Amino acid sequence: MARGRFITLEGTDGVGKSTQAALLADALEARGLEVVRLREPGGTALGERVRALLLEPTEEPVSPIAELLLFEASRAQLVARVIEPALACGAWVVCDRFYDSTTAYQQGGRGLDAALVVRANALGSCGLAPDLTLVLDMDPALAFARGVAGAEPDRMEAEGLAFERAVADAYRALAVAEPARVALVNAAGTPEQVHERVAAVLRERGLDE
Amino acid sequence: MARGRFITLEGTDGVGKSTQAALLADALEARGLEVVRLREPGGTALGERVRALLLEPTEEPVSPIAELLLFEASRAQLVARVIEPALACGAWVVCDRFYDSTTAYQQGGRGLDAALVVRANALGSCGLAPDLTLVLDMDPALAFARGVAGAEPDRMEAEGLAFERAVADAYRALAVAEPARVALVNAAGTPEQVHERVAAVLRERGLDE
Repeated sequence: MARGRFITLEGTDGVGKSTQAALLADALEARGLEVVRLREPGGTALGERVRALLLEPTEEPVSPIAELLLFEASRAQLVARVIEPALACGAWVVCDRFYDSTTAYQQGGRGLDAALVVRANALGSCGLAPDLTLVLDMDPALAFARGVAGAEPDRMEAEGLAFERAVADAYRALAVAEPARVALVNAAGTPEQVHERVAAVLRERGLDE
Repeated sequence: MARGRFITLEGTDGVGKSTQAALLADALEARGLEVVRLREPGGTALGERVRALLLEPTEEPVSPIAELLLFEASRAQLVARVIEPALACGAWVVCDRFYDSTTAYQQGGRGLDAALVVRANALGSCGLAPDLTLVLDMDPALAFARGVAGAEPDRMEAEGLAFERAVADAYRALAVAEPARVALVNAAGTPEQVHERVAAVLRERGLDE
């Protein structure tokens, strides 16, 4: 059986990743493919427990590197127990966020050392790279303006926006650094318009048959 | 204020690490030093919660790399929140196990890729290396024979012993590879005899004043 393909969706908050992941998975299923839909962090019992551990309020702040390694542990479990077995069985995996989120947020947004994040991602992904990564690109100010799910106006204050812009810049840098894997997709317009751009990328890259 | 020193004790089960760690800490305190006594894994609230997470029975087995990264996350928290602040304040830190345990058990014992374990240790230790690592060395068969705490005779079966021997060999290889940091100490004899050997290593390395 042919190995499946691994496609990830990335981008800043509010660009429409989960909507586009669902539309893409629907389209792949309409082609008769078996599709596994995932969302990071999570997807395994261990991942959920790690997430609970990070969200639990505690008097002891979690160090940035400890947090990074907890995310990577959760990722390693998802790769080993869900993604790799699915790909081996011929399923296509569509994942809302993967290691590029760690690069964009921890390195681009929070300023963790680039080489450190690269090494952590290599460990957490168990060496697995997506066949295609779709970065939904939009000025974070527009994403805020069109209404992030659950976002309150006070999230639009200057600092939050500067952070999201640093993350968006990090995503664009990834598309420049790894053009064979990472495609930038204009996220402006209706979900259907954006989905047509996503479908065009799959066609360009021979992932449409 | 002069930075403190970081001393770790390593070795296979039953060689007397915790006894020697306590005797060493006592001796350092008798010299008027402030001493922080630690034991891996643990030492922080996060570390305890990660340990509970690993011990909790679940239907989903934890992948070896996820387990490794959870240990490293716990270590990163211990370094950032306890060890580094203590050293900066001039305290000496005596730790029962540190990253050499990961090397010896995960790589030497369980066969994880060596380069992978080195990279994981570099992340989890946040780049901190012990000033001195004392490897208590003994044929694992003797350690078993003299009675591992809580060990039942059935732990002495061939497979367990072969595993412990692989771990002991990995520790010896570390002492050969990093002689400036890692000292092999003969763990045979009474606790006082072994402590005298430990004290001699500290004298040889200028850590006695």
